[in-house]
Amino acid sequence: MTERLDIVGIGNAIVDVIAPVDDAFLAANGVTKGVMTLIDRPRAAELYAAMPPAREVSGGSGANTIAGAAALGCRAGFIGKVKGDQLGRIFAHDIRAAGVNYAGPVVNGEAAEETARSLILVSPDGERSMNTYLGISTTLHAADIDEAMLERADWLYLEGYLFDTPEAKAAYARAIAAVRRGGGKVALTCSDPFCIDRHRADFRRLIAEEVDLLFANRDEALSLIETDSLEIALGVLSREVAIAAVTLSGDGAVIVRGKSRTAVPAQGVDVVDTTGAGDLFASGFMAGLIRGHDDRKAAHMGCIAAGEIISHYGARPETDLAELMARNNL
Amino acid sequence: MTERLDIVGIGNAIVDVIAPVDDAFLAANGVTKGVMTLIDRPRAAELYAAMPPAREVSGGSGANTIAGAAALGCRAGFIGKVKGDQLGRIFAHDIRAAGVNYAGPVVNGEAAEETARSLILVSPDGERSMNTYLGISTTLHAADIDEAMLERADWLYLEGYLFDTPEAKAAYARAIAAVRRGGGKVALTCSDPFCIDRHRADFRRLIAEEVDLLFANRDEALSLIETDSLEIALGVLSREVAIAAVTLSGDGAVIVRGKSRTAVPAQGVDVVDTTGAGDLFASGFMAGLIRGHDDRKAAHMGCIAAGEIISHYGARPETDLAELMARNNL
Repeated sequence: MTERLDIVGIGNAIVDVIAPVDDAFLAANGVTKGVMTLIDRPRAAELYAAMPPAREVSGGSGANTIAGAAALGCRAGFIGKVKGDQLGRIFAHDIRAAGVNYAGPVVNGEAAEETARSLILVSPDGERSMNTYLGISTTLHAADIDEAMLERADWLYLEGYLFDTPEAKAAYARAIAAVRRGGGKVALTCSDPFCIDRHRADFRRLIAEEVDLLFANRDEALSLIETDSLEIALGVLSREVAIAAVTLSGDGAVIVRGKSRTAVPAQGVDVVDTTGAGDLFASGFMAGLIRGHDDRKAAHMGCIAAGEIISHYGARPETDLAELMARNNL
Repeated sequence: MTERLDIVGIGNAIVDVIAPVDDAFLAANGVTKGVMTLIDRPRAAELYAAMPPAREVSGGSGANTIAGAAALGCRAGFIGKVKGDQLGRIFAHDIRAAGVNYAGPVVNGEAAEETARSLILVSPDGERSMNTYLGISTTLHAADIDEAMLERADWLYLEGYLFDTPEAKAAYARAIAAVRRGGGKVALTCSDPFCIDRHRADFRRLIAEEVDLLFANRDEALSLIETDSLEIALGVLSREVAIAAVTLSGDGAVIVRGKSRTAVPAQGVDVVDTTGAGDLFASGFMAGLIRGHDDRKAAHMGCIAAGEIISHYGARPETDLAELMARNNL
């Protein structure tokens, strides 16, 4: 237990339920395209009943990033709450089989909520609309944080979505304190522009006080800084956080590190399902930093990992990411 | 409830757990390549723990055929036993969302076995090795047969795999009697050469006495007739069953109807996962017969449906089969 870990993530432990639909289905079922909407149990049942046949693949934004980092050779751990039900066992199997240290927490008992799931509706253009029933994962609290594991971690990776759960802020504070005690750093991903809207003040304070590396896409960066100008957003971020990695969909990504900026292009791939694009960019970028690469090379790794994930349904890699990087001399 | 149904299937209600592996994994874990092996619960847990990250897709041979037939416009029903657990809800959702009448049976209660699952290991050549834990589906018995639904059916579609469950033969007898009362016919698929080995005498008797349409692949036809010669097997089948549809992998299929033979070529596709190829051939062929097509046209529909299913992971269609047929003027 004294060996260091490269990265430990904390996030919602979710199984994705993925089906292709047309945009008329989204309209008829009141789904907002392209974002993550939190839904309750009755709504989850109603929307699932309306959905086409689906496939189930482990998901969860932070868990996707950590699974991807492990696939790229990082020594990784993850903390996220499941029930000991069939979906919980699927989540646990998949993340462990990806090489991640994962011990739950797992909650048992009839009364407990079920493992979280996200009903992901993929439009013909590859855009995904996520409808997430958080179930048991809303109950992650400070007592669930494995401080010993975090003290061994060089990086803590936090998912913005966890701000939606009332207990999680205290859990985050405990996790950050533990990783700091061990000399580690803190990365945060913004998760979703609507998630930022729900928690902007908390996000800004956390970023300014605790975050060493921030991930955001264009919409999230604009929402966070409350501006319409990417240039203004990047300028503010350059002063508020040591490294900001901003993804720009088809335009690749830009890494802002103080006064330095590094832009890299996206990979040209046929888009099937954009779910997990940002998550896997973070996997590749962090794996690159952990290997000691410069921002350009690390961001290139991020773009390649993101390109793999959007070429198929589901947000976990289907090809050997390490081999894919090797083929690209990374 | 007086409307006729085109086809009602009976089979194991299974959720597939699918992961790509190399052949060394099969050897190291004692898996026999290319066939279906029945496994118990401890073996299922052991093999699952060794498996890479997986995806879950509804399966079950007969259920795949019926879901495919429904996708091709057939009015369809299915009978197969699940537990009211998360996998059971996934199976029920997916088959209903495919347009199939499905009422379970669903068994509840802590003590009941879980919903069946098949751990499907897909080799780089696309060949699948299935390891099936039958769970609750072994308890399908005669009392579970919805005779009223079967009396409305033009075709009953039976899965050979159900012979592996002790109660199922009585269930089959009741189902056959019900469909005969309503003027319907009986189709049977051989499922697997090892399944035939386990139950050859029962298969032969059922075929001679009750089956109007038999599906087999080359290995199954040879095993059934206990010969090394496909020519001999086809000759025997031509005398024992009204229609035999024999699939020949990359060589397409041959339909034997008395003295008439109709050969059709396979579709040229990139093989990802052969799981469900035979099941979907049966969907297409039966949908063709139900539409009133001749054997050539119906077998062509079978080959196109099989070609779709082997081009991706999982044994349920991912593209609109009806549209695919229309593009091929079928």
